[in-house]
Amino acid sequence: MTYCCALRLEQGLVLISDTRTNAGVDHISVFRKLHTFGVVGERFIAIQTAGNLATTQAVISHLQNALNFNHEPNLYSANNMFEVAELVGKTLKTVLEDITSNTQEQMNYSGSILVAGQIKGEEMQLYNVYPQGNFISATTDTPYFQIGESKYGKPILDRALHYDMPLDDALRCTLISFDSTLRSNVSVGLPLDALVYYKDSFIIPKGKRIGEEDPYFTQISKQWSETLRRGLQELPKPTEDYWV
Amino acid sequence: MTYCCALRLEQGLVLISDTRTNAGVDHISVFRKLHTFGVVGERFIAIQTAGNLATTQAVISHLQNALNFNHEPNLYSANNMFEVAELVGKTLKTVLEDITSNTQEQMNYSGSILVAGQIKGEEMQLYNVYPQGNFISATTDTPYFQIGESKYGKPILDRALHYDMPLDDALRCTLISFDSTLRSNVSVGLPLDALVYYKDSFIIPKGKRIGEEDPYFTQISKQWSETLRRGLQELPKPTEDYWV
Repeated sequence: MTYCCALRLEQGLVLISDTRTNAGVDHISVFRKLHTFGVVGERFIAIQTAGNLATTQAVISHLQNALNFNHEPNLYSANNMFEVAELVGKTLKTVLEDITSNTQEQMNYSGSILVAGQIKGEEMQLYNVYPQGNFISATTDTPYFQIGESKYGKPILDRALHYDMPLDDALRCTLISFDSTLRSNVSVGLPLDALVYYKDSFIIPKGKRIGEEDPYFTQISKQWSETLRRGLQELPKPTEDYWV
Repeated sequence: MTYCCALRLEQGLVLISDTRTNAGVDHISVFRKLHTFGVVGERFIAIQTAGNLATTQAVISHLQNALNFNHEPNLYSANNMFEVAELVGKTLKTVLEDITSNTQEQMNYSGSILVAGQIKGEEMQLYNVYPQGNFISATTDTPYFQIGESKYGKPILDRALHYDMPLDDALRCTLISFDSTLRSNVSVGLPLDALVYYKDSFIIPKGKRIGEEDPYFTQISKQWSETLRRGLQELPKPTEDYWV
């Protein structure tokens, strides 16, 4: 399984992906699912992947190949993020058609992809790309997308996240969303890849890998458990009509 | 969809079920999914149901019919909760075999059931009964079961719940688990049915129905959002290596 989450907020992008892949619980590996591309000062593109690893690796390799051999269209020839999403969607659709042309089990090979970034002179965008190649974009009403194992980490996002919150608040909120997911589903696992992009900065952030021993993540995970336990204690006692 | 949660703790049982059923988003109804049986001073049995409504209603009706017409075995002839779970499991399996004997779509008619209670002289028990008629029991290590839409409400249970916590703390924790689920999935809906049973009390609690206007539930839901927002603010700021 996988959990990827991407936020497109007023001030920038917050992107986090886990790295665990599994073919059964006895076959667990670490693979990067957050990929970055770009030209400093001109464009930043991030791609997060969930689903069949052969499929999503093929998509990333095709996109990288097009860049290496200057095949157009490619990620650096696209005029805006919409064209980037179109290219990613078409690549995903083509890869899936190649793989599944001889099989009925299309679902097993499927994948989904988040595409985020900004090209100079254009709006910063976040797209959720489906296996059919089509996609939707994040808005101020719905400023985030999740792919993979999204449910455990959704309540904190639904309660705390809003479009105009500062990026450091949003980053903490998303890290807590991951912590909740890690605790409830062993198929989502550390290390995490986290990345923050400031709007109009046009840099390619290196991002941070968060491992088992990461002191900051360990600290907020522990403090969050304490917050929840204390918060529950501070709720008013149930009224008497609960006890009849 | 449905969300039912049942806790078997040192001091007693906490059971909550939602009441929303849906055949598509344009066909939503209210049906009770928390059913109680018993003989004051002698036995208390609660059954929570998820899945196909025709299937689960049939199971409850068969169990009730056996009581009405004194067909044995029935819920009041069972010697302990294990025999109760066996009876519920066999009834569910038989109903499913009847319904699906002429169809391939077994999944669409399936259901799952939580059975909790205590019979005088015996341990209080909680069982998770599968469509195949078999079942598992809650333990001190894993003191709770969920059926239906369980994921959104699981993180708070995983963090805060433990076997020896007081029932009022456990009730608040479970109500928050429901509040998180209600916010993230419209197919789980108010009113909720909540019930607390004290070990060795052998009463049949009436329980409480929690509707849209319930002042206590509204209050803790609001306070919990505030707790989470404040808790996020109080987390230490992300370290500098997140911003590269």
